[in-house]
Amino acid sequence: MKNIILLGSGNVATHLGIALKNSNYSIVQVYSKSIENAKVLAKKLDTHFTNDLTKLKSADLIIVSINDDAILSILSQIKNTAIVHTSGSIALDIFKGKFTNFGVFYPLQTFNKEVDINISEIPFCIEGNSLEFEKKLLEIAKDLSNNVVKMNSQQRKQLHIAAVFACNFSNHMFSIADDLLSKKDIDFKILLPLIRKTTANLGCNKPKEVQTGPAKRKDSAIIKKHIATIKEKEIKELYQKITENIIKYHE
Amino acid sequence: MKNIILLGSGNVATHLGIALKNSNYSIVQVYSKSIENAKVLAKKLDTHFTNDLTKLKSADLIIVSINDDAILSILSQIKNTAIVHTSGSIALDIFKGKFTNFGVFYPLQTFNKEVDINISEIPFCIEGNSLEFEKKLLEIAKDLSNNVVKMNSQQRKQLHIAAVFACNFSNHMFSIADDLLSKKDIDFKILLPLIRKTTANLGCNKPKEVQTGPAKRKDSAIIKKHIATIKEKEIKELYQKITENIIKYHE
Repeated sequence: MKNIILLGSGNVATHLGIALKNSNYSIVQVYSKSIENAKVLAKKLDTHFTNDLTKLKSADLIIVSINDDAILSILSQIKNTAIVHTSGSIALDIFKGKFTNFGVFYPLQTFNKEVDINISEIPFCIEGNSLEFEKKLLEIAKDLSNNVVKMNSQQRKQLHIAAVFACNFSNHMFSIADDLLSKKDIDFKILLPLIRKTTANLGCNKPKEVQTGPAKRKDSAIIKKHIATIKEKEIKELYQKITENIIKYHE
Repeated sequence: MKNIILLGSGNVATHLGIALKNSNYSIVQVYSKSIENAKVLAKKLDTHFTNDLTKLKSADLIIVSINDDAILSILSQIKNTAIVHTSGSIALDIFKGKFTNFGVFYPLQTFNKEVDINISEIPFCIEGNSLEFEKKLLEIAKDLSNNVVKMNSQQRKQLHIAAVFACNFSNHMFSIADDLLSKKDIDFKILLPLIRKTTANLGCNKPKEVQTGPAKRKDSAIIKKHIATIKEKEIKELYQKITENIIKYHE
């Protein structure tokens, strides 16, 4: 499984391609529906590129890293080759019927093409349609990362939802805080020590155990004061909903 | 301002007392309505203790670190001394009329008596009723911390609300994620690299700029799938509300 074709030229394809190349895999071709994007990534990986699925070379493995809603339509144009996708929310079944060896190769991280990442720390969630093929996928993942787990499609779907709460939604809480502070000319950086403390706690404690604040203390005087102070209707509503949920969670 | 009385024996009083003592201030007495708690902290600080406000010694400064709703009632029993409270959500005005020199000495951190903290990194938000007194308070704060800012009561109130979003609410997002994962036998630790990446971004980027995820991408297929998958009514509702807010925020 040393010769690999990448379908896709976005953030995941870019970081995976570079990491695979650095681990002595050979990227034999990059496909993207945009020939320009295919070319940019192919140049980084010193390989061939195409925007025509009928012109795919032969390879040991195809890695599909394109938008979820485009995956199904391109599969019909690919001949039977060992194949994986890298999506958190698409089940293994999508490959069923057409392919002999198929799986999922899901790196749990927010990728950005422009930012270097340390791929060895990124958890890879692996699933294969047979024990034998899964073993091969696990070996490739272990060449890239020290954090490789087997995970079925149901678990992966749940993990993706959990990651939305833990990362996207928590980041939005930081955005709201930033917005509230800028209205009173306070630099967001003042919150960084407190935010770092909050996340440092997670290494050794369950988040529920280290919850603090007015909702956790059921301090209704402060909660009322805060709700009265927040001017923006949606932010006020979010404050109320999350507070109610914390109170219920800690009953 | 070297001789200080602490009113309170909780988390803030404990950490402040120890930090002040380590910076060569003299804690002349600890008051708590619970004589046992007063004794425990007084022992740590090698000083006197009382549960009787009429028996307060004389001092250069009284630091009031008790529950917000109890502050007003004890102020009537204290004779005119330079005085500060350590609350994020009580205005400076609470001291008005009775005291000559008064202020706020607010450390922005979640304290826990049992956990050591590095007080020098904690932001202290300082306000005084006169420039001269404020200057003295700033000096004391700078003896404890490298992160001292002047902040008026309106700003402090807003900062407290922002901190609830950035720390308490983000921690609750981690709790929800933990709960979702444990239902599918997945260890929460798998999310730690992603959470660390999310908060590491905050040092150099505004949180709004580094927002990722299905809501940011307006990926309605995944959003619908997630909402259909989440079983718990309140968690489903939170997912919807926060997603709507992210979409609106990034329009």
